[in-house]
Amino acid sequence: MIPIITAFEASPDRGRGLARDMPVRWALEEVGQPYDVRLVSFARMKEPAHRALNPFGQIPTYEQGDLGLFESGAIVLRIAERNAGLLPDEGDARSRAIMWMFAALTTMQAPIVEFGMAAIFERDKPWYEERLPMLRDRVRVRLGELSERLSDAEWLEGAFSAGDLLMVTVLRRLGGTGAVEEFPNLAAYTARGGARPAYKRAFEDQLAVFKASQEQQA
Amino acid sequence: MIPIITAFEASPDRGRGLARDMPVRWALEEVGQPYDVRLVSFARMKEPAHRALNPFGQIPTYEQGDLGLFESGAIVLRIAERNAGLLPDEGDARSRAIMWMFAALTTMQAPIVEFGMAAIFERDKPWYEERLPMLRDRVRVRLGELSERLSDAEWLEGAFSAGDLLMVTVLRRLGGTGAVEEFPNLAAYTARGGARPAYKRAFEDQLAVFKASQEQQA
Repeated sequence: MIPIITAFEASPDRGRGLARDMPVRWALEEVGQPYDVRLVSFARMKEPAHRALNPFGQIPTYEQGDLGLFESGAIVLRIAERNAGLLPDEGDARSRAIMWMFAALTTMQAPIVEFGMAAIFERDKPWYEERLPMLRDRVRVRLGELSERLSDAEWLEGAFSAGDLLMVTVLRRLGGTGAVEEFPNLAAYTARGGARPAYKRAFEDQLAVFKASQEQQA
Repeated sequence: MIPIITAFEASPDRGRGLARDMPVRWALEEVGQPYDVRLVSFARMKEPAHRALNPFGQIPTYEQGDLGLFESGAIVLRIAERNAGLLPDEGDARSRAIMWMFAALTTMQAPIVEFGMAAIFERDKPWYEERLPMLRDRVRVRLGELSERLSDAEWLEGAFSAGDLLMVTVLRRLGGTGAVEEFPNLAAYTARGGARPAYKRAFEDQLAVFKASQEQQA
C-alpha cells in the first residue's frame, strides 16, 4: 500500500526544502518507495481532521494502511526500519545510526531553530542585535563539536544512514547565514548529502508544489 | 554484561532529577536492568576521553560491551527495544510509541528548554520581562495541544511506554513554573509518571549522588 504524506500547500520557505516533509520525501526516495502527497493549507492544519492525525497541527504526517504517524524523525525511522538502505543491519551499528538521528533533532537542531526563530520573530525587537551573537555562538559550539567528530569522514558512521539524512537536513536550515561555511568539512558534508540523487528528486518534488501554488495565485 | 552510564558528579539541578541521566535510569529501572554509573565532573565531560564517547561533551553516555551511545532518547530507545515493558510488540503500535518519544524530545521539549534557558541565562537582561510572556505562550500552546490529545487517558497510547517516559521527563522540566498545572490532566499525567516505582528508584539514586557530592564539599 502506497503511503500518503502531508505537506504545505504553499510552503513558507518558498520551496527551499526546509519544511519537514523534505526529510520524509528524501527517505522515501532513498529506499525507492513511491508515495502520495496530500497538500494542506495553514488553516486546514489547525482543523480537527488534521489534528486527529497530528495533535500539534503540523506537517508532515504519514499514513499507510491503518497506521498514522507524525513527527518527521519518527516517520524517517519507520521508513528506515522497514526498508533497506538507511540503517545498518547489525544491532550496535543500527543503534549508533539512530543515535545520530536523535543528535540531529535535539542537540544540533535546538540551537539552530532558536537562532532561526529569533531571526524571523524578533528582528524588529530592540534586543535583537545584542541577543543574536549569543544565539550564533551556541550554534557555533555545536557545529565545532560536530566538525571535530566528523573529521575527514564522508558520513558520520561508515555508510550513509538516516542519521546523516536528518543531520544534513538540520544543517541546511543554516543556509544563507554562513555558519556552516565556517567549518569546511561540514559544508562539504552538507553538499554531499544534497548531491545524492534521492535528495535531488525530493527537492524537485517539493519545489514543484511551491511553484504550482504561486501559479495558482498569479 | 551490565551497562555503564555516565552522570553528573554534582548535578546543576541539585538532585531534582532534571539531568539527562534521569530518563535513562528510569528506563533501566522499568525493565529491571541493573547498571553501573560513572560520575563525571564538568571539566571531565569536556576532555577527549569523554568526548570520544560523546562528541558534544555531555552526559549521559551508555556503554555495554563494544557499544557506546550518547543521546538520552537513543539510549532509552535501545533499552526499550531490547527489553520487555517499554514498547508494544505489534509493529504499528510500536511505531506510535516511538513517535511520542520524538514528539517529547522535539515538538514539546524545544519551547520548554528555550523558556528554561532564558530564565537561567537572560534573567538580568533588559529584555527579559518582555520576552518571557512570548516564550511562555509558546509552551502553553504545546501544552494545550498535548492536553487536548491526552484527554482523560492514563497514558498517550494505551499502556505506559517509552513515549510516556520521555514526555513525563520533559514536562517535569516545567516544575515550579505553574505551566503544567494550567492543564489538570497533564499535571495528573506527570504525577502518575512520577508515582511509578521505577521512577522513584531512579529519582532516589540520582538524588543520593547529589547528596554525596554535597557531603564531600562540606
